[in-house]
Amino acid sequence: MVSSPFLGELIGTTVLLLLGDGVVANVVLQKTKGHNSGWIVIATGWGLAVAMGIFTANAFGSADAHINPAVTLADAILTNDFSKIATYVPAQMLGAFLGAVLVWLQYLPHWRATEDPAAKLACFATDPAIRSTVPNLISEILGTIVLIVGVTAISKVEGIQVGLGPYLVGLLVWSIGLSLGGPTGYAINPARDLGPRLAHALLPIPGKGGSDWSYGWIPVVGPMIGAAVIAIVLGLISL
Amino acid sequence: MVSSPFLGELIGTTVLLLLGDGVVANVVLQKTKGHNSGWIVIATGWGLAVAMGIFTANAFGSADAHINPAVTLADAILTNDFSKIATYVPAQMLGAFLGAVLVWLQYLPHWRATEDPAAKLACFATDPAIRSTVPNLISEILGTIVLIVGVTAISKVEGIQVGLGPYLVGLLVWSIGLSLGGPTGYAINPARDLGPRLAHALLPIPGKGGSDWSYGWIPVVGPMIGAAVIAIVLGLISL
Amino acid sequence: MVSSPFLGELIGTTVLLLLGDGVVANVVLQKTKGHNSGWIVIATGWGLAVAMGIFTANAFGSADAHINPAVTLADAILTNDFSKIATYVPAQMLGAFLGAVLVWLQYLPHWRATEDPAAKLACFATDPAIRSTVPNLISEILGTIVLIVGVTAISKVEGIQVGLGPYLVGLLVWSIGLSLGGPTGYAINPARDLGPRLAHALLPIPGKGGSDWSYGWIPVVGPMIGAAVIAIVLGLISL
Amino acid sequence: MVSSPFLGELIGTTVLLLLGDGVVANVVLQKTKGHNSGWIVIATGWGLAVAMGIFTANAFGSADAHINPAVTLADAILTNDFSKIATYVPAQMLGAFLGAVLVWLQYLPHWRATEDPAAKLACFATDPAIRSTVPNLISEILGTIVLIVGVTAISKVEGIQVGLGPYLVGLLVWSIGLSLGGPTGYAINPARDLGPRLAHALLPIPGKGGSDWSYGWIPVVGPMIGAAVIAIVLGLISL
Repeated sequence: MVSSPFLGELIGTTVLLLLGDGVVANVVLQKTKGHNSGWIVIATGWGLAVAMGIFTANAFGSADAHINPAVTLADAILTNDFSKIATYVPAQMLGAFLGAVLVWLQYLPHWRATEDPAAKLACFATDPAIRSTVPNLISEILGTIVLIVGVTAISKVEGIQVGLGPYLVGLLVWSIGLSLGGPTGYAINPARDLGPRLAHALLPIPGKGGSDWSYGWIPVVGPMIGAAVIAIVLGLISL
Repeated sequence: MVSSPFLGELIGTTVLLLLGDGVVANVVLQKTKGHNSGWIVIATGWGLAVAMGIFTANAFGSADAHINPAVTLADAILTNDFSKIATYVPAQMLGAFLGAVLVWLQYLPHWRATEDPAAKLACFATDPAIRSTVPNLISEILGTIVLIVGVTAISKVEGIQVGLGPYLVGLLVWSIGLSLGGPTGYAINPARDLGPRLAHALLPIPGKGGSDWSYGWIPVVGPMIGAAVIAIVLGLISL
Repeated sequence: MVSSPFLGELIGTTVLLLLGDGVVANVVLQKTKGHNSGWIVIATGWGLAVAMGIFTANAFGSADAHINPAVTLADAILTNDFSKIATYVPAQMLGAFLGAVLVWLQYLPHWRATEDPAAKLACFATDPAIRSTVPNLISEILGTIVLIVGVTAISKVEGIQVGLGPYLVGLLVWSIGLSLGGPTGYAINPARDLGPRLAHALLPIPGKGGSDWSYGWIPVVGPMIGAAVIAIVLGLISL
Repeated sequence: MVSSPFLGELIGTTVLLLLGDGVVANVVLQKTKGHNSGWIVIATGWGLAVAMGIFTANAFGSADAHINPAVTLADAILTNDFSKIATYVPAQMLGAFLGAVLVWLQYLPHWRATEDPAAKLACFATDPAIRSTVPNLISEILGTIVLIVGVTAISKVEGIQVGLGPYLVGLLVWSIGLSLGGPTGYAINPARDLGPRLAHALLPIPGKGGSDWSYGWIPVVGPMIGAAVIAIVLGLISL
């Protein structure tokens, strides 16, 4: 049996991105069955992607099932144990990259059918609705703070039925997407954005534009700041 | 550990409003990712906001997790113990105000991008679809009666799995939003409306209009009447 | 304590219709917040209405929580005990009537704002998409068969967590609405259609048309036939 | 009592197809209540159809509740016991056929009301958004791999509450539909496609076109390849 925390984080994040970026592809690429089906589809798809990513991460050996470096960072700060970062974060990054490659494969004929390079990039990485560094950074910080507060609150429900927790975290991300995703598309997860952006840069996508690296640091740094800040606060109040 | 009922109600209501008014902002403000994505997004977002607000309130020290003065009033009448009101209601009002401030921050570049002052106010407080005092008041009363009946019914499920209850209350509010929210936008919670309306009045929102204080008493008084009436009825029949 | 099976069926069906017909009113009446928000809103609203109706029926004293004469009939055939019908069905009919009256009250200013008499009737009773007696009857029979099979299947899950069952029945009706509601609007419940149709006939609704009594027998007879047929079949195979 | 694994797979798959193809009929046929209500309706409908199909299969005697030959194949490979295939797969195929016949019956007046033969076929079998053999095959393989990984992950949750599992598998298929259904309409189940395609060929549907048999092998072969490949991989790593 080869299951391990590394494998769990890797496959869990692969599933997260395949289902998460997959729903964006379904909505924004041309000629798909779900073309132009709106924000309810995108946010629901991402929420379910998180739940399924967590179940998968558990099954493949990660009992933590963070599938998000920001969650790993917050957990490290809260437990004062930074040893997992070196294992989890590379697994998450690699998994996110692989998930994005699978989205590319799943929607193979639709890249050529879609003219707009921005639509193609949107199937990989986030971009802001209105580009403005400080507000965009704030949006990612605040979204991640809600994520960490929510995950902490759900994990504090004593005696929770197994199987319910991952579902509730999926609902949390569904909620964040619906409510806080408007300004930046809610990366709230550095792996979710950076891995696929790299995939976009490397994959042979017909008619693709640039990978928008000038924005790319915000969905990485924002979530890490948010996770660190809220973990420190939660630690100070011993929650 | 600084958790307490006051802090629980405060942070729980902050999360409720950040996620609840957040989804309105995403749908009604210009240039957001979720612009014009419809009632299904708004009602789903509010339902999830309630579930997440309850989990958060629990985690920060309020086992009751009312996050709504109307629920606190009904609970006081049903238990004949009015001692919690003085602690809970100020926490809920302050939390609702803070949540609205965070929505303003989260959608910072979108206030200038949106011309319509009514759309901006809608991200804070409710307004009636057809303005008419008595019917609007009735709508808020009736919506709140369903809320209290539903919360009471769910809380009477003996041996309910921990974690399921807050989810079911979220579904209840999802249901009320879809079904009864049509005429007034279902405040059914005085804090949800008054706190953010005050935030709207105080925050430096570019191009904002008035805060519509002439309507503002209805979503405060209506829910309190509804909660009092149904609590007295439920008390009379010893439910 | 005045709770009883009669009261439970009564209040449960009132809540069912208030939330169920309420969502139709929100979608089809003019100038509501949810105007024209589509089938996803209607079907989700009705599914949640069923779940909340069951919780309410339980809380007010009906452990069975049928809130539907067709379910009561199927239960009577399957248990070979017809004694509940005389209590449950009048309660359900009265509750459905009262729920529809509350919808009228909730949406009071919107009846005048809506010109189309058919839209107004749709907030009370069902009507077929394509009028044709036999196919319409078949649709109601088949929808009700799926309802009874589903309810039976869910009730056979041994050791199911309290609180989960009513939720799953709500999902079942959500599913039936999405999938089988297309031809006749899925009454699948004689009380759901007859009680509100009577309310439509009696209430002072400005500019209302006829209550379409020539169709009104189908959503009553169809569900009863469907329930009887499937209950006999399930009884024969001792399921 | 005549319940048996054969009957369970048969009736479970009948319910799956009645509710699954039913939602497609509601969305794509003319003059239905849910006409043109979009991908959120279709994907939600199919997800719920799976959950209800599983509950039904359980109730009628199949504890496995595969209702999908690809799941039966993966299970056979993982357990190295191929004995169930001969019973389950014919039951699934027959059930899928019967479910499609019931959809035809449920939407009886709408076939004549719909001109487009492709829309009519879509109520039975899948068709690719962009026709291209290898990519279409890959899409079905990859979708099925996610299905098997997800089902395996959910079934590995130890001590999961009864009743929660089928719901989570429904969510999994909801997720796959939203995210991966864009290119081929996600058969991910040979019975789901072949049985109804046969029904389409045989039923007297006014103005129907061909049953597109040239594509029909892909939603059969693709899911079987995907199931076999992932089952072998999961077996190798002893998951």
